[in-house]
Amino acid sequence: MKKVGIALLGLGVVGSGTYRILEKNKEYIKNHYGVEIEVMHILEKDTTKAEALGIDKSIVSVDINNVINNPNISIVAEFFGGIEPARSFLIASLRAGKSVVTSNKEMLAKCWQELDAAAREGKAGLYFEASCVGGVPIIRTLQESMQGNNILSIMGIVNGTTNYILSNMADKGLEYSDVLREAQRLGYAEANPSADVDGFDSMYKLSILSTLAFHKRIPLDKIYREGISKISKKDIEIGKELGYTLKLLAIGKLADGKIEARVHPAFIQNTHPLATVKGSFNAVMIAGDNVGDIMLYGRGAGDLPTGSAIVSDIVFCARQTEHILPVFATPRDTDFSDDFDSKYYIRMSVADKSGVLSKITGVFGKYDVSIATMQQRQSGDDPAVASVIFFSHENREKNVMRAISEIKSLNEVKEVDAVIRVVD
Amino acid sequence: MKKVGIALLGLGVVGSGTYRILEKNKEYIKNHYGVEIEVMHILEKDTTKAEALGIDKSIVSVDINNVINNPNISIVAEFFGGIEPARSFLIASLRAGKSVVTSNKEMLAKCWQELDAAAREGKAGLYFEASCVGGVPIIRTLQESMQGNNILSIMGIVNGTTNYILSNMADKGLEYSDVLREAQRLGYAEANPSADVDGFDSMYKLSILSTLAFHKRIPLDKIYREGISKISKKDIEIGKELGYTLKLLAIGKLADGKIEARVHPAFIQNTHPLATVKGSFNAVMIAGDNVGDIMLYGRGAGDLPTGSAIVSDIVFCARQTEHILPVFATPRDTDFSDDFDSKYYIRMSVADKSGVLSKITGVFGKYDVSIATMQQRQSGDDPAVASVIFFSHENREKNVMRAISEIKSLNEVKEVDAVIRVVD
Repeated sequence: MKKVGIALLGLGVVGSGTYRILEKNKEYIKNHYGVEIEVMHILEKDTTKAEALGIDKSIVSVDINNVINNPNISIVAEFFGGIEPARSFLIASLRAGKSVVTSNKEMLAKCWQELDAAAREGKAGLYFEASCVGGVPIIRTLQESMQGNNILSIMGIVNGTTNYILSNMADKGLEYSDVLREAQRLGYAEANPSADVDGFDSMYKLSILSTLAFHKRIPLDKIYREGISKISKKDIEIGKELGYTLKLLAIGKLADGKIEARVHPAFIQNTHPLATVKGSFNAVMIAGDNVGDIMLYGRGAGDLPTGSAIVSDIVFCARQTEHILPVFATPRDTDFSDDFDSKYYIRMSVADKSGVLSKITGVFGKYDVSIATMQQRQSGDDPAVASVIFFSHENREKNVMRAISEIKSLNEVKEVDAVIRVVD
Repeated sequence: MKKVGIALLGLGVVGSGTYRILEKNKEYIKNHYGVEIEVMHILEKDTTKAEALGIDKSIVSVDINNVINNPNISIVAEFFGGIEPARSFLIASLRAGKSVVTSNKEMLAKCWQELDAAAREGKAGLYFEASCVGGVPIIRTLQESMQGNNILSIMGIVNGTTNYILSNMADKGLEYSDVLREAQRLGYAEANPSADVDGFDSMYKLSILSTLAFHKRIPLDKIYREGISKISKKDIEIGKELGYTLKLLAIGKLADGKIEARVHPAFIQNTHPLATVKGSFNAVMIAGDNVGDIMLYGRGAGDLPTGSAIVSDIVFCARQTEHILPVFATPRDTDFSDDFDSKYYIRMSVADKSGVLSKITGVFGKYDVSIATMQQRQSGDDPAVASVIFFSHENREKNVMRAISEIKSLNEVKEVDAVIRVVD
């Protein structure tokens, strides 16, 4: 029986979940995967956490040297989150020949190259299934199941908090701020929700997933990012009426040989496989040139789902005789598209008089923006103001934004209330 | 660069698809996965197939010794289908130390133990991602992503032909025989459709998936199998009206420590993630005790989707320094449940007179079958006959079947038209 010693850095929610799974499934893993995993050291300041799990305090400390200098530890699983000290501790571990398992998407997205270099130096492995979409095996799939495909696109709902908020806005007809407050009360959203609602978390995950999909590092500044805080229940309601669901999507795409990477809210048709992904569930679609569309669906967060991904990485790592590190090209600026094609939903409040629509459509025409449908509605209290909704065909994003900017300056246009991309 | 020589046994639809992907993606695989795959021999009687792909006929023959005796061939990919000669050729290859990649579900389900023994003898690998659900990476997920879970159940739509037929019956309101004929005309169903419509194909796949999920070999005679040929459009319509979709499901489940494995048509609610899986798409849900529910979705068949899975296995295999063969327990009879719990939809035609319902519900009561709802409808032309539909709570299958059998013998019951399980 192969015995493998591991260290856990941090005993927060996922660290504790991982420990619980490893203890509970120790025999199961031995019997079915032929490795005995032993937790040999834990870094954690708060000793009550270790006590709560019945861990002997002789293996708990705050000194990384207790991990690095222990020759019996071959895998380091990190749960600190944030950049430091995770980055330094993991680089030191990798250099010392210890493989790393991490769920730290921000650090991985920002410091992957350094970690990779350290892993090569130490001939160690770097595993990160838990960094993206919790228990959904999206990383293993991209690394070990898509070798026969040029990946054309990945598109996913990769953040549970925002999906919970948008699902609740739709189901209960509530405004963003009310649902956010409720989500914070229930612990589904942080006191400072920016990492989730402004799309940072989705952006880190998209950077990692796109790097694997396109074999090129995707720097964060190449990712367009727009969050959900400006979404109003009115647009969700109109979308619902017309057969659309609003989701925060992370999209990576190869178009004309260039990579597009973007995180933004989007309307998708109710018949789209991603439309049924509700609440805190996540899902990712991958389009390969041979396999066609595949989709993976499951829980994107939580102690046990994420712990399940960590344990999968630990066992996978423990069974390798040699670690394979993926090779990525260093990207040039020209590898990335600075524009993209999309359909759009545009809602604006305009003066309810003749000639207005012709002016607006004139501006769309000037910027080559082709409109598919238009409908006019009562706008609410003011009879002099009409609400107009446009759905466009596929257009270049930049052209649409230029047109919107000029339309905003028209006297007859009171407000451009919403511009939401529509994804087929 | 690691060079790996492979042989293809058969150049049918999937064999040709695999060859095309390997040729088209040769550089891509070299650059991104660090292995050069060279097709060194092909077994195929019909030389026109090789010619159509531009393959030099010097590497095409009908003699397996050309494969086994070639020391440069380390992987054999098999596309014959059926038991022989696939079985003998693969056992000989494995013994000679050549790893096997196969999509042959029937042979794997029936001869896995022999193949496994031969692989151990030759220290070779045995890979079969393509055997279940085409391009969907369900095998890799079960083997390499679920190590932190006791798998509680797997449930899937794993046959494209039957899903195409059922989807079309529902969408177009047609009878089974009409849709089958159309599917045969379009090439979606075989001239002899039994392997698909009678559930054999789903049964082979369920045997493989359950073996991986529960770490015990699942003999085919332990799998309950019922096909779709008796499904009438009337039941699909009634289901639709009540919010249910009819699917042919393959279900493997741990209940009270025993394994249940069954293939049968079932009603699932329209909100169930599997309900939206249409036409030739397939999907499998896995429930793990830590990860919760995950679902994988994609194309279950076709030259390129299945070829994509074969190529994934070839590259995965080529990169291993040591092959890991999963260990399964030899099952005892007591490991399998000979009964199971389910909800039921039961439609019967009965004499339209008083006292009938009380007789029927009396029989249900006698066998401990608890009914949730009942509704009576006009049965069609004959005013003396009423159609009665029961939905039951969860009951033991055997009790339900005993009750049905007694109900059939009642004078007032003209016919039990349909008994369909309902899955939550």
